[in-house]
Amino acid sequence: MKKIGIIGLGLIGGSYGLALKETGHYRIYGWDNRQEHLQTALDREIIDQVLKPENLSHLDGMILSVPVDKLPSLATEYLDKTPDNTWIFDTGSIKNNIAVALGNHPARERFILSHPIAGTEYSGPSAAKKDLFNGKINIITDPEQSRPEFLEEVKKLHENLGMQNFFMSSAEHDKHIAYVSHLSHVSAFMLGKTVLEVEKDEKNIFLMAGSGFASTVRLAKSSPHTWTPVFGENRREILKVLKAYRDNLNDFIRLLETGNREEIFHILQDINRIGTVIDRINRNHGKS
Amino acid sequence: MKKIGIIGLGLIGGSYGLALKETGHYRIYGWDNRQEHLQTALDREIIDQVLKPENLSHLDGMILSVPVDKLPSLATEYLDKTPDNTWIFDTGSIKNNIAVALGNHPARERFILSHPIAGTEYSGPSAAKKDLFNGKINIITDPEQSRPEFLEEVKKLHENLGMQNFFMSSAEHDKHIAYVSHLSHVSAFMLGKTVLEVEKDEKNIFLMAGSGFASTVRLAKSSPHTWTPVFGENRREILKVLKAYRDNLNDFIRLLETGNREEIFHILQDINRIGTVIDRINRNHGKS
Repeated sequence: MKKIGIIGLGLIGGSYGLALKETGHYRIYGWDNRQEHLQTALDREIIDQVLKPENLSHLDGMILSVPVDKLPSLATEYLDKTPDNTWIFDTGSIKNNIAVALGNHPARERFILSHPIAGTEYSGPSAAKKDLFNGKINIITDPEQSRPEFLEEVKKLHENLGMQNFFMSSAEHDKHIAYVSHLSHVSAFMLGKTVLEVEKDEKNIFLMAGSGFASTVRLAKSSPHTWTPVFGENRREILKVLKAYRDNLNDFIRLLETGNREEIFHILQDINRIGTVIDRINRNHGKS
Repeated sequence: MKKIGIIGLGLIGGSYGLALKETGHYRIYGWDNRQEHLQTALDREIIDQVLKPENLSHLDGMILSVPVDKLPSLATEYLDKTPDNTWIFDTGSIKNNIAVALGNHPARERFILSHPIAGTEYSGPSAAKKDLFNGKINIITDPEQSRPEFLEEVKKLHENLGMQNFFMSSAEHDKHIAYVSHLSHVSAFMLGKTVLEVEKDEKNIFLMAGSGFASTVRLAKSSPHTWTPVFGENRREILKVLKAYRDNLNDFIRLLETGNREEIFHILQDINRIGTVIDRINRNHGKS
C-alpha cells in the first residue's frame, strides 16, 4: 500500500483521491484549507485520513492540487518538508510559473510537473468523480528535470487511472493550453456576461435558447477561484490569443457591416474544417 | 389523412417529415432543389412522395424550410400557388424579413410565421430525426395576422410533436434570438477560426483540448448554407449584440493587461449566475 498525500481536495484533487483508492493500491492522506471541503472529502471517502505534519516523512508521494497562483510557493514548501524518497507532482493547468519557481531548488528532481486534461464546469470535493481521468490525457512537462524513477512512477500512476502520458516543455504547454482551453473559458465567460447584460428578461433566455447556447456558454459556470489565477498567471499567452480572437470578431463585424455574404460564406465553410478536430476530441472524451 | 407539402428537406424540413409521419395522421409530399437531398428523403422515408405542381391544389398545409434569405420570395410564391383552404408556415430562425415581405399580401392570413427552437450542428436530410422537436419550444410570431382556424391547426400540429407554443412579435423574436442563438454561432465560428490560425499543428489540439473546447466550438460545424443567410438577414440585431460582446472582450483584455485580479474575480463570480439559466435550458432539452 503506497501512502499518498493530497493537498487541495477540489474537483481534481478529490478525483485523484477517489480514483487512486479505487485501484486498491493506495492509502490517501488529504488536506484542504477549507474545513467544509475536508469534511466532505472524509464523508465521501475521498481520503482515508486527514494529512497531519507528522505523516509527511512517511509518504511515498504527494499531489498538489490547489489554484495555480498558490502552486509555486506550495511546491517549494513541500519539497522542503518531505524526505528524499518522496516524489511530488502538481495538477495545475499552467506549468511555467512552477517551473520557474522551482528553477534551482536543490530537490527539483523530486518534483514532476503534471497536468491532467480533465475537468468539468463544477468544482469542490462534491464534484469529484472516480472516473474523471479514465481515457484522458496527462501532460508532463520538462520531464528531463525529474528523477527517472520518480518520473516512471508518476507515469505509471496515471496509466493505472486509464490515462495516456505526453511530454513537452512548460513554455510550449502554456502556449497551447491558452489556445485550446483558456480562450474557450474567456469566451464563455464573456458570452455569459453579454447575454446577462443585454437580455433584461431571463424568461426570454429560457424560452428561446437552444442547446447551442447552453453548449457555448457552459464554461461560464466554472469556478472564479480556479480561473482568476489561471487567467492571471498565464496572461501573456492568453492575451496573445485573445487579441487574435478579438481581431477576428472585428473583421467579422466589418464583413457584416459591408454585407459581403459571399466572403462570409467562404470563411464559415473554411472554419467547418474544425469539425473533424471536434469529432476526434469527443471520441477521446467518450462522446459520440 | 392530412396532406402536407414540405419544401426543403434538410435537418429541419426532414425532421418535420419524419415526425409528422410518425403520428400516422399525415401524408408527406416533399421537394428539395438538391436532387441528392430528395433521393435521401425518399430513401429514409422522410416523405411519402415527391411534391409535383399538380399536388399543390390538394394540400391541407405546407411547410417552408429553406435558408432564411430564400423564405420571403418563397412564401409569396406559394401563397400565390395554393388555394384559400391551404395554410403555410415557415421554419426560419428569423422572422422579420418574411413578415415585411408578406406585409400586404392578399392571402397573408393563410401564412403562419413559425420557428421551432430545435436543431443540431449537423445538416441535410441524413441528419433529420423524428424526435428532434419533442420537448422543445415553438415560437409563432405576429399571430394576430393569421386566420384563427389555421393558427389553431398549426399550434396543434406542433403540440402533437411534443412542443409548446409561445407568441411574440417578429421584431422581438429577431432581437432575442440574436442574443441567445446567433451570437453563440458567431462566437463558435470565430473561436474555431482563431484556433485553426494560431495552432499550426493540429496534433496539439487533439492532445490538449478538453471537452470544454469541444463544447464552446461545436457550433462551428454548422452549415454555411444555413448560417450565412441568417447572419446577413438579421445583421442589424446581430451587430448590436456582437459589438457588446466585443466590448466586453476588450474590457477583459484591459483588465488582464493591468493585472487586476480582484476585479476579474468579482466579474467571473457575477457571471456564474448564468449557471441556473444553463441548467434550466439543459433540463428543457432533456440533458442533466
